[in-house]
Amino acid sequence: MTERYVLRLSCPNRPGIVAAVSTCLFEAGANILDAQQYDDEATQQFFARIEFDAAAETFNVDALRDRFAPIGARFGMDWNIRDMRQKRRVLLMASRQHHCLADLLYRLRGDELNMEVTAIVSNHPRESYEGLDFGAIPFHHVPVTPETKAAQEAKLQELVVATNTDIVVLARYMQILSADLAEKLAGRCINIHHSFLPGFKGAKPYHQAHAHGVKLIGATAHFVTPGLDEGPIIEQDVEPITHRDRPEDLVRKGRDIERRVLARALGWVLEDRVFIDGAKTVVFRD
Amino acid sequence: MTERYVLRLSCPNRPGIVAAVSTCLFEAGANILDAQQYDDEATQQFFARIEFDAAAETFNVDALRDRFAPIGARFGMDWNIRDMRQKRRVLLMASRQHHCLADLLYRLRGDELNMEVTAIVSNHPRESYEGLDFGAIPFHHVPVTPETKAAQEAKLQELVVATNTDIVVLARYMQILSADLAEKLAGRCINIHHSFLPGFKGAKPYHQAHAHGVKLIGATAHFVTPGLDEGPIIEQDVEPITHRDRPEDLVRKGRDIERRVLARALGWVLEDRVFIDGAKTVVFRD
Amino acid sequence: MTERYVLRLSCPNRPGIVAAVSTCLFEAGANILDAQQYDDEATQQFFARIEFDAAAETFNVDALRDRFAPIGARFGMDWNIRDMRQKRRVLLMASRQHHCLADLLYRLRGDELNMEVTAIVSNHPRESYEGLDFGAIPFHHVPVTPETKAAQEAKLQELVVATNTDIVVLARYMQILSADLAEKLAGRCINIHHSFLPGFKGAKPYHQAHAHGVKLIGATAHFVTPGLDEGPIIEQDVEPITHRDRPEDLVRKGRDIERRVLARALGWVLEDRVFIDGAKTVVFRD
Amino acid sequence: MTERYVLRLSCPNRPGIVAAVSTCLFEAGANILDAQQYDDEATQQFFARIEFDAAAETFNVDALRDRFAPIGARFGMDWNIRDMRQKRRVLLMASRQHHCLADLLYRLRGDELNMEVTAIVSNHPRESYEGLDFGAIPFHHVPVTPETKAAQEAKLQELVVATNTDIVVLARYMQILSADLAEKLAGRCINIHHSFLPGFKGAKPYHQAHAHGVKLIGATAHFVTPGLDEGPIIEQDVEPITHRDRPEDLVRKGRDIERRVLARALGWVLEDRVFIDGAKTVVFRD
Repeated sequence: MTERYVLRLSCPNRPGIVAAVSTCLFEAGANILDAQQYDDEATQQFFARIEFDAAAETFNVDALRDRFAPIGARFGMDWNIRDMRQKRRVLLMASRQHHCLADLLYRLRGDELNMEVTAIVSNHPRESYEGLDFGAIPFHHVPVTPETKAAQEAKLQELVVATNTDIVVLARYMQILSADLAEKLAGRCINIHHSFLPGFKGAKPYHQAHAHGVKLIGATAHFVTPGLDEGPIIEQDVEPITHRDRPEDLVRKGRDIERRVLARALGWVLEDRVFIDGAKTVVFRD
Repeated sequence: MTERYVLRLSCPNRPGIVAAVSTCLFEAGANILDAQQYDDEATQQFFARIEFDAAAETFNVDALRDRFAPIGARFGMDWNIRDMRQKRRVLLMASRQHHCLADLLYRLRGDELNMEVTAIVSNHPRESYEGLDFGAIPFHHVPVTPETKAAQEAKLQELVVATNTDIVVLARYMQILSADLAEKLAGRCINIHHSFLPGFKGAKPYHQAHAHGVKLIGATAHFVTPGLDEGPIIEQDVEPITHRDRPEDLVRKGRDIERRVLARALGWVLEDRVFIDGAKTVVFRD
Repeated sequence: MTERYVLRLSCPNRPGIVAAVSTCLFEAGANILDAQQYDDEATQQFFARIEFDAAAETFNVDALRDRFAPIGARFGMDWNIRDMRQKRRVLLMASRQHHCLADLLYRLRGDELNMEVTAIVSNHPRESYEGLDFGAIPFHHVPVTPETKAAQEAKLQELVVATNTDIVVLARYMQILSADLAEKLAGRCINIHHSFLPGFKGAKPYHQAHAHGVKLIGATAHFVTPGLDEGPIIEQDVEPITHRDRPEDLVRKGRDIERRVLARALGWVLEDRVFIDGAKTVVFRD
Repeated sequence: MTERYVLRLSCPNRPGIVAAVSTCLFEAGANILDAQQYDDEATQQFFARIEFDAAAETFNVDALRDRFAPIGARFGMDWNIRDMRQKRRVLLMASRQHHCLADLLYRLRGDELNMEVTAIVSNHPRESYEGLDFGAIPFHHVPVTPETKAAQEAKLQELVVATNTDIVVLARYMQILSADLAEKLAGRCINIHHSFLPGFKGAKPYHQAHAHGVKLIGATAHFVTPGLDEGPIIEQDVEPITHRDRPEDLVRKGRDIERRVLARALGWVLEDRVFIDGAKTVVFRD
């Protein structure tokens, strides 16, 4: 019986990284199954993702971590070794439009997304989600107005801490996070924006797209940063439209793009395939 | 033996247009093969494209035009009936990058584009296009500098008139037309821009795309208007890229998108499938 | 106030069809909004779909039907005029895999599909669909074994009749209909097959695709006919895969393709956009 | 100044491969830029592609090859280290349809394909390619009839040997190679088939596709094996079509798919990204 792990790391590039890492893995009894490495020559940053398995009876992942630590230190790595069965803890935020929320919950039940949902948070009450079965997942109605925004964000942050949440997903959550909260969640908060960024930032992107007469509409999953709809892009997709499509048709057609783009992006994050590289991402796709 | 024609028309919408048009066609001996009609409820404008055939021996297209004229007048139509064998006269403009030019010429020879090329105009000399066989098509080297731009555009316009050109294609012609020339060629000048507009207008769009870390790159064929990269969009397409792609890779991958987007857009224009509808287009795709 | 209708028709092609039809519509007070006509030169069959609106106060659709009947008779038309608010009655059949079922129900709630679901029928018990809210839709567990197949199909047919069902959708229903039932439901039963037909008919298409090493997987929505996975194709789509994908990955990735292909095909059928043309279909896409 | 190399290898999987390889590279002064490794758990075969650079003044690739040889031997590797500036020698075969040939030659001139074309071979005479500039590439007209096929193939093989050709590309070469020749060129002969295999093998695939009423058409680049249109698939792509497309439209639309699929597949082969893995391929895409 073997078990599967993933090592991910990034560090300034210099010769010897892969040699040191793979020798360490080999000596610990690991067998590499799938690996990708990439050196961004512009930022001089090196990225690697290594999937390996090892005999369940003899392999000790903590021993590997101990053995790996000096290598991580030597190369100045940001690194992590994870048992692939271990689930990330994810908090989902939604507003009135619930197609992305529903889709993620459906995929969760179908074992497509290796995560545990710690909470569903909305600025709309539970009744807005009729027909959606949240199972045992706690639901929090946290309304927000200009006056209460600071308090609401404080509450949200408490919840992230209290639930030990790793990743926050804005699943068509239509409120803009404050710069402060965006900073605090940096690198672990994903948004789905309903346009092909950088086109059509901000409100009502499908109406903007309609007014411009574009022939494709799209969606973008990205990390949240203080700049509106500006964080590093994880995934994008588009679909053709025609002159026959009214704004409401774009909204409807767009829902399909949004939900698959968000699901893909989140899936890759959960599988340790996504790295932030300055204003961009490195994604070792499956 | 039958021959094939296409009728295209646009006018303010009101009931009875199709009835009047199709009755007129029927009485003239036409048989409808393929037709599309569309009412833009926002602009209240009606658009139709009707392909029909008729017996070569008995059908007289000029007689049909005479018969149709009062209908056109009654509904305030912009209309046209064309023998589908008749070729449009097209002038191609290019700069140093010649992949779009080469592609259009190749398709021309393969009978993919129903046009006659009246001239190839470039701000670079003939030697820049080694390996490209222009056959009998006249080539004009019309260099342009800030000082000579007005004279160059005057020359260009003369050429359009002298060659009886219907459509001007900017096949990666890297000079911006003056507002004056853009006005003069309104509705019959097509540009290919190497980005998914409205993202990345202006210079070096692939470098802009690279800096933004987008996950798809695209190209846009549009009518030229005085606003830079802003005219009504005819066609757009995209392809996925990855973090591995440097700007030069995007340039290379983009060439394939540009040439197919331009060829598709031009083909549709040549087949009378494209209508300008305010700031947008109606495209009755094949 | 206006109301929206759709007229669809097919008949052997001959000159004068559009003239007769559009004149009739005009005289009845209809205003054409969107229309497509097509003559299949191979089968000599003519197809048309005409969307129109008319003033709610003065327009009488039954009067139009009476007025239209002689035209239908004269040209030997198969024709139909439908109020676009009127919902088709659809029966959904599913087996253990419920992603297509769940997706259709979700779209139904979101008003993406203009239908009323008359029943959900499965060869698996209700417990197989935990987490799926069927609302008020009757669920029928109709198990099937080789011995009971005839009885089960008889029951199914009764249900179709009793519920006044217009369209039957096999939403990943994994039983093959008998030739007899397929005949009885001809032209109103849609299946989603999880391959890009005609490749990989029959069982376990993703495993077949994996064994062949294809680089794209697909799904096909088609009308059911007695031949297995052979009826007229309504819609197909594909997605790229890689050598890294195991059969279970293809199954997972394929679910997304299946659900969007089925939803698109069904949506078009519900909007009267799909015609059977011999072994093929004519689809006037939106 | 650095120079760029690529190491590719495949061997039965066992722990320690990456450690041994990367340690060897590191000790030789190589700096890994981009690498992918994959273990096919079904065939137990391991594949790796490693791009690295090294200081031009101090690095000696032959010394690295000597150093690497024992590792190759120890793991039973099929391996190769190549200077990325080194061009592969490619022989192009064509028939009457020359869009793929023209496209490859155009890309060759634009430095998109890192190859030297050793010869163009056709069963049609030079006049068939009017408008195509072959530059200094030798052209061989080798007609083939059922009677002369053996002699023609012998001549072809001589040419492959005499020109020191690495890779043979059937760029819409419409003759079927004998099993004997297919064997001799195993692993280094690429064909473009104008369908989405395994659908529509053999002759006139677009006519087959039209008769089936499929909604997408495609093309497939694959290695040639004795079985007709059956070798390991390198790349596939598709495009949507409609009921309006006649077989000749599919032929025209298909040309675009064919040329980009073949160019992509050949480009990947030239960059050492493609491995044969039983009846399938492993492709480390860019």
